[in-house]
Amino acid sequence: MTDTAIINEVGLRDGLQNQPVPVSTDAKARIADALVNAGVRYLEPVSFVSPKAVPQMADAAALTERLPRRDDLHYTALVPNLKGYQLARDAGYPTVALVLSTTDTFNQRNLNMSLEQAAASCETILSAAREDGIATRTYISGAFACPYDGPVPVALTQSLAERMFAAGSDEVAIADTIGGGNPRQMKDIMAPLIREFGAGRFYVHLHDTRGLAAAMAWEAADLGVRRFDASLGGLGGCPFAPGATGNMATEDLVYLLESSGLKTGIDIQGLREAIALAAEATERPLGGRILSWMASQEKQGKTACLW
Amino acid sequence: MTDTAIINEVGLRDGLQNQPVPVSTDAKARIADALVNAGVRYLEPVSFVSPKAVPQMADAAALTERLPRRDDLHYTALVPNLKGYQLARDAGYPTVALVLSTTDTFNQRNLNMSLEQAAASCETILSAAREDGIATRTYISGAFACPYDGPVPVALTQSLAERMFAAGSDEVAIADTIGGGNPRQMKDIMAPLIREFGAGRFYVHLHDTRGLAAAMAWEAADLGVRRFDASLGGLGGCPFAPGATGNMATEDLVYLLESSGLKTGIDIQGLREAIALAAEATERPLGGRILSWMASQEKQGKTACLW
Repeated sequence: MTDTAIINEVGLRDGLQNQPVPVSTDAKARIADALVNAGVRYLEPVSFVSPKAVPQMADAAALTERLPRRDDLHYTALVPNLKGYQLARDAGYPTVALVLSTTDTFNQRNLNMSLEQAAASCETILSAAREDGIATRTYISGAFACPYDGPVPVALTQSLAERMFAAGSDEVAIADTIGGGNPRQMKDIMAPLIREFGAGRFYVHLHDTRGLAAAMAWEAADLGVRRFDASLGGLGGCPFAPGATGNMATEDLVYLLESSGLKTGIDIQGLREAIALAAEATERPLGGRILSWMASQEKQGKTACLW
Repeated sequence: MTDTAIINEVGLRDGLQNQPVPVSTDAKARIADALVNAGVRYLEPVSFVSPKAVPQMADAAALTERLPRRDDLHYTALVPNLKGYQLARDAGYPTVALVLSTTDTFNQRNLNMSLEQAAASCETILSAAREDGIATRTYISGAFACPYDGPVPVALTQSLAERMFAAGSDEVAIADTIGGGNPRQMKDIMAPLIREFGAGRFYVHLHDTRGLAAAMAWEAADLGVRRFDASLGGLGGCPFAPGATGNMATEDLVYLLESSGLKTGIDIQGLREAIALAAEATERPLGGRILSWMASQEKQGKTACLW
C-alpha cells in the first residue's frame, strides 16, 4: 500500500467551535499558516453559522480574507442551512460541507428541524450548489451513535448517504460525531457503500472519545477510504469534560497512515508548531497520542524516530 | 461476529516486572482475586526468572500458592530458560510461555544469547515440555520492531513463528513488545501465518506506546485471532518515561472487542476494582482510554453506558 491519503484539517472549525476562550481572527490566521507550512493542503477553517449560536465562528468572512492563498490549497466551509450556503458562496469557497444528522432528536438540537426537514434542506442546498458550480460534501453526523438516542442502525446511515448522493452530493462524509462507534460498525456501514459508490467519494470523520478512532480509521483505510478529517492536537470536544477528547488528532492520523504506508504529505514536527499556537490561543493543553510518545523520547535524550 | 475472545491478563507479570515500587505477594494475590471476580479466566501471574534480574518476580513460587484455584482458571508462567521451565513445571503450571526475540541484539540484552542460541534454547524447552505434557506458547518478541535495531522484516517474524511451530510449540504469540508496530504490519505478518496454521494457534500481545494498539488488535481480530494479552489499567512500560505507556489496557481491549461483537466475559466495572488495587500497590496512576471516558461521564452525573 504505497499511495496517498488526504487529511482535511478541521481544527479551526470543528476544533474551535465549542472552545470557551475566544480565539482572535489573527490567532486563527497564524494557526492556518503553520498548518500549511506543515504540509496541510485541505482545510475547513470556518462555518457560516449564526454568530449567536457559535460565537467562535462569527469572524468566518474576516478569517477567510486572512487565509493563505495558493493554488494547491483546498478550502471548505461548513454550511448549516441555505443562508450559510449563500454566505460561503459569496466568500468564494469552492467546496461546502453540509450536515445531516441521523435522528430527529439530533437534527432538532442542531438545526431545529426534523430528520426529514434537514434532509430536504440539504437537498435544496445541493441543488443550489450544483447550479453555482460549487462542490459539495455532506456529513452524515452521528452515523454510528446519536448523543441522545444511542446506537444508530447501519441501514439508516447507509440510506441517508444514498439519499445525499442521489440529491447530487459529490462526496459523503461518514461522521462519528461523538466517538461512539467501533471498527466493526465502520466495516458494516462502509463496505456496501463503497461497493455501490466507490471509495473515492467518501470521507471519514472521527472523534477519539473512547479510544477507538485509530482502529476505525484503519478499518476505513483498509476498505480503500483515502479522505479523512482530523483536528490538530485533538482540539475539540467539550473542554469541561476531562477525558471527553475531541476530534481524532491530525498527528495521530498522520502517524497511523504514514506508518502503514500511506503518504499524507504532512510533517508531524511541523504540526507541533501549529499545535503550540492552538494550545496558547485556547488556553488548554493539546496533543495526540504520538506527541506524548515523542515528548517522552525527547525527555530521555532520544530522537523520536517515527518510522 | 458474535463469538468469543480470550484475554490473557499479563498485568501481574509483564505489567509489574519493571515497576520500581516493590509489590508484596499479598497485594498481588488480592489483585488476582479482583481480576477473577471481574471475569478474567486466563492469567499469566509470574515469570520464573533470576530474582537478581527481576526482583518483582522473586516471589513467583510463593504467589503461585496464593492464586485462586478453580477449574475454569487457566494459568501460564513465563520461562526465560530451561531452569525457569523446570521451576514452573515443579510449581504445577499447565502452560508455559517462552520468549524468542527477533534480533541478535534484543536476545543478547534479554537472555545473553544470540538469536540462534535463543531459538535453540526454545527448542530444548519445547522438547522438555512435550515430554512433561505441559502446553507451550512461544512469544516472538519484538515481532514488529526491535528496541535496538528498529523495524523488523515481516519474513523474519514469520520464519521464527514457523520454526517454533515446527519445534512443537502449541501456540505462538506475535508480540509488539515496544509498541512500534502498525496495523498494516499486523496484516502482512499474520494473514499468511493464519492461512498456514489457522487463527486458533495465535496470540497477539500489544503495547499502546504510540496509540496504535487498538488498531492492531482490531486488524488481528478481523483476521480471526481470538486470543490476546492485555494488562489491567495499562500497567507496564517504563514508569520513568511519561507517555511511554505499557501493555494495551485490558479494559480498552474489552471495550474494543465487546463493542465489535466479541464476547470476552470480562466486566469493565469489575476491572476497576483490580485497577484501583494495582494503582495503590505500584503508587502510580493507572487506567486505559475507556476509563478516562467513563470517569468524565460520571463527573457529569451521567451513567457511562458502554454499548
